[in-house]
Amino acid sequence: MTAEHTRDALRTFVAERDWAQFHSPENLAKSISIEAGELLECFQWSADADPERVKDELADVLTYCLLLADKLGEDPDELVLRKLEKTRAKYPVEKAKGRSTKYDAL
Amino acid sequence: MTAEHTRDALRTFVAERDWAQFHSPENLAKSISIEAGELLECFQWSADADPERVKDELADVLTYCLLLADKLGEDPDELVLRKLEKTRAKYPVEKAKGRSTKYDAL
Amino acid sequence: MTAEHTRDALRTFVAERDWAQFHSPENLAKSISIEAGELLECFQWSADADPERVKDELADVLTYCLLLADKLGEDPDELVLRKLEKTRAKYPVEKAKGRSTKYDAL
Amino acid sequence: MTAEHTRDALRTFVAERDWAQFHSPENLAKSISIEAGELLECFQWSADADPERVKDELADVLTYCLLLADKLGEDPDELVLRKLEKTRAKYPVEKAKGRSTKYDAL
Repeated sequence: MTAEHTRDALRTFVAERDWAQFHSPENLAKSISIEAGELLECFQWSADADPERVKDELADVLTYCLLLADKLGEDPDELVLRKLEKTRAKYPVEKAKGRSTKYDAL
Repeated sequence: MTAEHTRDALRTFVAERDWAQFHSPENLAKSISIEAGELLECFQWSADADPERVKDELADVLTYCLLLADKLGEDPDELVLRKLEKTRAKYPVEKAKGRSTKYDAL
Repeated sequence: MTAEHTRDALRTFVAERDWAQFHSPENLAKSISIEAGELLECFQWSADADPERVKDELADVLTYCLLLADKLGEDPDELVLRKLEKTRAKYPVEKAKGRSTKYDAL
Repeated sequence: MTAEHTRDALRTFVAERDWAQFHSPENLAKSISIEAGELLECFQWSADADPERVKDELADVLTYCLLLADKLGEDPDELVLRKLEKTRAKYPVEKAKGRSTKYDAL
């Protein structure tokens, strides 16, 4: 399975329902936050969450992320890899190893 | 570029820094919410956001989503496509076309 | 100190800066989510957070909540107490005691 | 009505259900984010939200904020006013008037 196949499936789903009109970048950013809250709800009172529910909620966050990437004309893998280069520079191995400290306090 | 390549790059990045110890599913779910908030901040006062900042923040949400999928032993594309089947059933084309109404009010 | 005093201070602060124009209910709801993410960031990798940082971030969430209540012409205490009545009905003591289960699964 | 009255009502509600055991600062911070997401959902596809739903969701965010303030032994009004002093310094009237720019770009 390739990511291109996934994006095509999402595009078809949206087109069939004529939903592109609702998918402004702002609305998609709101949707990502809303779904991230539902994912977090799986862990509200305990670290021990129902895996099936976690997968469903994670899928919702991912779906809106893919729709936003598509809206911006960006490949999601490239977005992630480009940002990883920046993060690599902010968290050099010798400073960050084994520590969860934020880069500006390293 | 394949998604597998991206996941390998993320795994190497995490392993080099010995960060897997911090990446419990709960901490990753929190991180997704935190980064979703930063993405939303691009649109806090206006629908008109700086595209470079949006891409960077979206990349952060995506990165934590990929790390959580990996932690769960799941392929992100499969997660999205499996959920899309459920959403398809909840939002049949004839009912949902051109409407942003939630399924339980359709 | 009374809550009325706090609301007056917030109103003056906003009026002096001519910021009411940005404070639509939607923008305030986004702001609450953004600040809630910053509060959560205090606990991103550990339950053990810096109390001063937590207080500052909680204050930001509260501030936007008070601004939204004010925008809606509502008294925040009344909002909380009215909702508490509904929650009381959803979580009767005999069913909910000592359990974090959501009402629809009680 | 005074805020003290509200806090007493919340404390009684929690004590009757023996829920203080779930209300660690971390769990309350997660709960604030989760409820902030539900508030944002009122505005997911449009700035035009159902006011009754907005009030209920805002009440939920406020409730968890009050519980967290109480947990920290802090008066919510004092938290807000103390933070307002800091924000005043970051956003002087002459620089910030009529602008939604973040302080570090003013």
